Amino acid sequence: MVNNWGYLGIKIDADLYGCRVVPDDLELIKRGMLSAANLANMNVVGEDFHKFHPQGLSGHLTLAESHMDVSIWPEYRFAEIDIRSCGDNAEPDRAMIHLINIFQPSEGWVERRYTGIFDQKRTPSGLYLPPSEHPRTVTYSLNDYIAFVDSSRTEKSRL
Amino acid sequence: MVNNWGYLGIKIDADLYGCRVVPDDLELIKRGMLSAANLANMNVVGEDFHKFHPQGLSGHLTLAESHMDVSIWPEYRFAEIDIRSCGDNAEPDRAMIHLINIFQPSEGWVERRYTGIFDQKRTPSGLYLPPSEHPRTVTYSLNDYIAFVDSSRTEKSRL
Repeated sequence: MVNNWGYLGIKIDADLYGCRVVPDDLELIKRGMLSAANLANMNVVGEDFHKFHPQGLSGHLTLAESHMDVSIWPEYRFAEIDIRSCGDNAEPDRAMIHLINIFQPSEGWVERRYTGIFDQKRTPSGLYLPPSEHPRTVTYSLNDYIAFVDSSRTEKSRL
Repeated sequence: MVNNWGYLGIKIDADLYGCRVVPDDLELIKRGMLSAANLANMNVVGEDFHKFHPQGLSGHLTLAESHMDVSIWPEYRFAEIDIRSCGDNAEPDRAMIHLINIFQPSEGWVERRYTGIFDQKRTPSGLYLPPSEHPRTVTYSLNDYIAFVDSSRTEKSRL
């Protein structure tokens, strides 16, 4: 892998199983997502929320920094969260931790990867790097992800 | 991996580099996404589209079968597509191929994975299977993905 890669965005996807809390209330989900965006320095520019029958919820926020989606299958106590982010100020992992805490899953995993990878030694128009030189997708168990986010914050506060 | 796993959803993510077409027109993107949903037997229940300044587009469709998102960085000729789907009738790969054809990328990759994995021998409430028993995420080059979708269709038409 090249040393000087840069990226346009981060994608963080969580699959949450055995959720102890599966709110069947759009307003609750919306409040949770708006708080998550706020904590993560992400700016909401649009939204789309739906409740399905007999069950199921879907929530979307369009962000100046990309977007955030939550889909809930209450009958399976299962929730999916997708957070996309770009820019230097956003802290999408803080948003993810906030949402995980709302659902209180018993198990799950979080996939985290960079997108729009480029070689900083080249001009941005030469954005493409062959996949063999891309940073890898990392899949964390829930506990490992929480530990990763904690350690990143400690790292930052030391700088 | 267990043999009798089932799943609630499919996630298909594409990172498209060197796009020859990067429409800077919300209506064009929206028409493309609506056609993609239609081709894939997915039902649109909501939408949220935004144009950023000085550049950049973000499009979202909420679907009865989950959701579809497109983010475009015209300055880098880079586009990200996320398609989420559930249910037996949806054909999310058809939607993805339609969108890839619109952008005409020179390079890229497609990540495809199942979510909400369960063991069909257990009751649905015992949804969780340990990640070691989950089917793996598959990452395709663009050409390999197109070949995979073609072969799946041929397979289906033989049945």
